Amino acid sequence: MSNKRVGRRTVALSAPPSVISFANIGGKMEGEGPLRDYFDELNEDSFFGEKTWEKAESAMQKKVLQRALDQARLKPGDLDYVLAGDLLNQCIGSSFGLREFGVPFYGLYGACSTMGESLSLAAMLIDGGFAGKAAAMTSSHFCTAERQYRMPVPYGNQRTPTAQWTATAAGCTILAAEGPGPYITHITCGKIVDKGIADANNMGAAMAPAAYDCLSAFFQDTGTKPQDYDLVVTGDLGELGHSIVRDFFSRDGIDMGNNFQDCGLLLYDRESQDMHAGGSGCGCSASVLNGYLLSGMRDGKWSKILFAPTGALLSPTSSFQGESIPSICHAVCLSVKK
Amino acid sequence: MSNKRVGRRTVALSAPPSVISFANIGGKMEGEGPLRDYFDELNEDSFFGEKTWEKAESAMQKKVLQRALDQARLKPGDLDYVLAGDLLNQCIGSSFGLREFGVPFYGLYGACSTMGESLSLAAMLIDGGFAGKAAAMTSSHFCTAERQYRMPVPYGNQRTPTAQWTATAAGCTILAAEGPGPYITHITCGKIVDKGIADANNMGAAMAPAAYDCLSAFFQDTGTKPQDYDLVVTGDLGELGHSIVRDFFSRDGIDMGNNFQDCGLLLYDRESQDMHAGGSGCGCSASVLNGYLLSGMRDGKWSKILFAPTGALLSPTSSFQGESIPSICHAVCLSVKK
Repeated sequence: MSNKRVGRRTVALSAPPSVISFANIGGKMEGEGPLRDYFDELNEDSFFGEKTWEKAESAMQKKVLQRALDQARLKPGDLDYVLAGDLLNQCIGSSFGLREFGVPFYGLYGACSTMGESLSLAAMLIDGGFAGKAAAMTSSHFCTAERQYRMPVPYGNQRTPTAQWTATAAGCTILAAEGPGPYITHITCGKIVDKGIADANNMGAAMAPAAYDCLSAFFQDTGTKPQDYDLVVTGDLGELGHSIVRDFFSRDGIDMGNNFQDCGLLLYDRESQDMHAGGSGCGCSASVLNGYLLSGMRDGKWSKILFAPTGALLSPTSSFQGESIPSICHAVCLSVKK
Repeated sequence: MSNKRVGRRTVALSAPPSVISFANIGGKMEGEGPLRDYFDELNEDSFFGEKTWEKAESAMQKKVLQRALDQARLKPGDLDYVLAGDLLNQCIGSSFGLREFGVPFYGLYGACSTMGESLSLAAMLIDGGFAGKAAAMTSSHFCTAERQYRMPVPYGNQRTPTAQWTATAAGCTILAAEGPGPYITHITCGKIVDKGIADANNMGAAMAPAAYDCLSAFFQDTGTKPQDYDLVVTGDLGELGHSIVRDFFSRDGIDMGNNFQDCGLLLYDRESQDMHAGGSGCGCSASVLNGYLLSGMRDGKWSKILFAPTGALLSPTSSFQGESIPSICHAVCLSVKK
């Protein structure tokens, strides 16, 4: 019955669903970074017109879904499903952001891998014949994440050299059974990988083994190598995590090459913006995908991208209780050809 | 392409996946309730041998998946996916409970509707040809939920008359493309519904409109009525929420009849156990389904059950910020015949 499986962990979609619309939103720092021209909306106000940062994050999800709908001239009722999640406790960025749309909703929690998870499930629901159109989306906000995971922003917490900067950003992709592409051709579901890293200020190192595990499975299952893709792009490993993944592969005799990138390294100018190890947060990979990457594919810059965002499945409580950081990575192959 | 849709929001599975194994675990209160004989394991120790309640909740998820695997004589590697989530911030009950299994994992957040959401997605992944076998599971723990949503248990917080009791319980269903049944035949995905109820001690009233919305859509899409099912069972609406749903339907001229039940009313003896409005928590509907309900179907007690757990998508932060409680309900039809 599981006739769409390729190898042990990868599925090949029989009628690859198409991206029909995509949108992203960023905040002040994202607007000062090298990808500023690839955002649909940039807002200098970290409150996005709301009274709290949590409400601001919900406003971002609401705005980004509305933009993606508008760009495809769709109404909310045209969507069979929205799949979304975020970093906030109980994923309130998504539930409050989406409550006015009245669209069937499956809530996800994949930490910063959520863009990969939501795209994966949306694509499978369409390819499986359960949906005609579905939206995949997520967000993160620097101030809500700092308050929840570390210290309230006004406290002025000093950041360690390996710390990453949570993006204030959201991204949304709308997929459909038919469309102009890019198409989602293959999906590899991640496993939870925990190699014992317990430093919540070094997420990149904690997540690197999960990225290596998922990308390895993808290459093995599909019989391909990194050079078969114009870009292999992780989500938010940052400088350290990204170089660890490169090292892991080089031990296997696999050169990840120059096309191995990370959304957390693309989103900001780390030196001039003082970003330490790079960007992070669900909104990091979501906004880079739904702007720079997908518009680059539409413009002919890249024809095949392997998108593999990672997530650190910790909570402040688990860290307080001395636990290490379980991580996950979901890989999605996007191609301009079916 | 969306050829499995029936009506606007419901899907009919083309080759209904079968339940091949199910397991549940409960704590002390669950062992003192009327369903005590329908648990695979009951543990009087609220710590389940661990040092913290959060680790206890992870231990429950680990145990319940292992039991479900053992009962089907499966190894973790036989599962193509596990779909799980829980109420804890960042869903650490699931991620820490599952990290040792090495199984591809999609994390969910559906609050107390998670058993319905995980079953829905697992069934669609199998019916869509993406998986041969998949596990759907969730948990809740009275002490972790009280600490996170209300007050730490040792504080001795007084409960309001409409308060519900979070079950210390976990449940897991393993589905496969082929098997002896019961089969999952239809699924209706919930919409986020928020009618402005803001009292976090009255979840049943907040969730009732979501249950009404989803069940109405299910009956309309499938052209059936409550009397076509041996049981229509909500997740954890409790006494008040359940009666509100009954009232909503009676306004439409639909009598929900005597077969309309609620897992939160089944799990405990409310009077002798001082449960106020009834049980709640992801583990409430998960443990009732994966014990009393599924074994009753196997034993011929019921042949068709409509399982519709609800979730309240609030967080303590959203309540502190004056927000109302968005809710959701996912409906899954189980039948002994394909």
